[in-house]
Amino acid sequence: MKIVRLEDLKGTEREVISPDGWTSYRFLLENDGMGFSMHETVFPAGTETPMWYKHHLEAVYCYSGEGSITNLDTGERHAIAPGTLYALDKHDRHVLKADTEMRLVCAFNPPVTGREIHDADGAYAPPVAQGLPSAAS
Amino acid sequence: MKIVRLEDLKGTEREVISPDGWTSYRFLLENDGMGFSMHETVFPAGTETPMWYKHHLEAVYCYSGEGSITNLDTGERHAIAPGTLYALDKHDRHVLKADTEMRLVCAFNPPVTGREIHDADGAYAPPVAQGLPSAAS
Repeated sequence: MKIVRLEDLKGTEREVISPDGWTSYRFLLENDGMGFSMHETVFPAGTETPMWYKHHLEAVYCYSGEGSITNLDTGERHAIAPGTLYALDKHDRHVLKADTEMRLVCAFNPPVTGREIHDADGAYAPPVAQGLPSAAS
Repeated sequence: MKIVRLEDLKGTEREVISPDGWTSYRFLLENDGMGFSMHETVFPAGTETPMWYKHHLEAVYCYSGEGSITNLDTGERHAIAPGTLYALDKHDRHVLKADTEMRLVCAFNPPVTGREIHDADGAYAPPVAQGLPSAAS
């Protein structure tokens, strides 16, 4: 059993502060051996963040804050509020707009290793492209 | 992209109300194809729930409420509060005690199918034991 507390991640390499404004706390990464990674990401009010996870499936549960997600492939926009989950089951290109500070719990498959580098599209490379074995299904 | 809202799960088979007191909202199940399932589970104040997922790995993020988890294999007890995650990376037998209502975001690998039956230990059978293909890694 592992116990991980947000306050213990602050100031470590598992607290990732983006120049785009968001902060991601990596509670579980690939080397935790769960087969998925699990993060909390905080988007400040007023941010609009385009993302595209070409190599990962991601599910995101909003427990605090309000905003919207727009699917850049279809143009569809959906309101996000506490109790809303969105699943990027088609590697959907999307933009997240935070009207208030949003706090999101995220799970990734394959698990994020913590060593990903965003490419020109804003995507993470797959684990194999970094010379790492894939821990994914 | 899938959007799932808690209020839309109420009254459906994805709202599982246990005779033990907890309620689980299954936002994502095996057939959603993410490689993990994702739930929100609400434990009322005063409940003590023994659990043992012999065939699944589970990670649980607490965003509301307070309580504790005891590892029944080691006797260790850990406080749980908003911002705490616990990961059952060794199929740990455990009991969750809710001092106040706790709201937890849970991810399972392999994904829960929604058709599991608790056995005498309180565990879910693995997908293969139910004649279902395993979607897990």
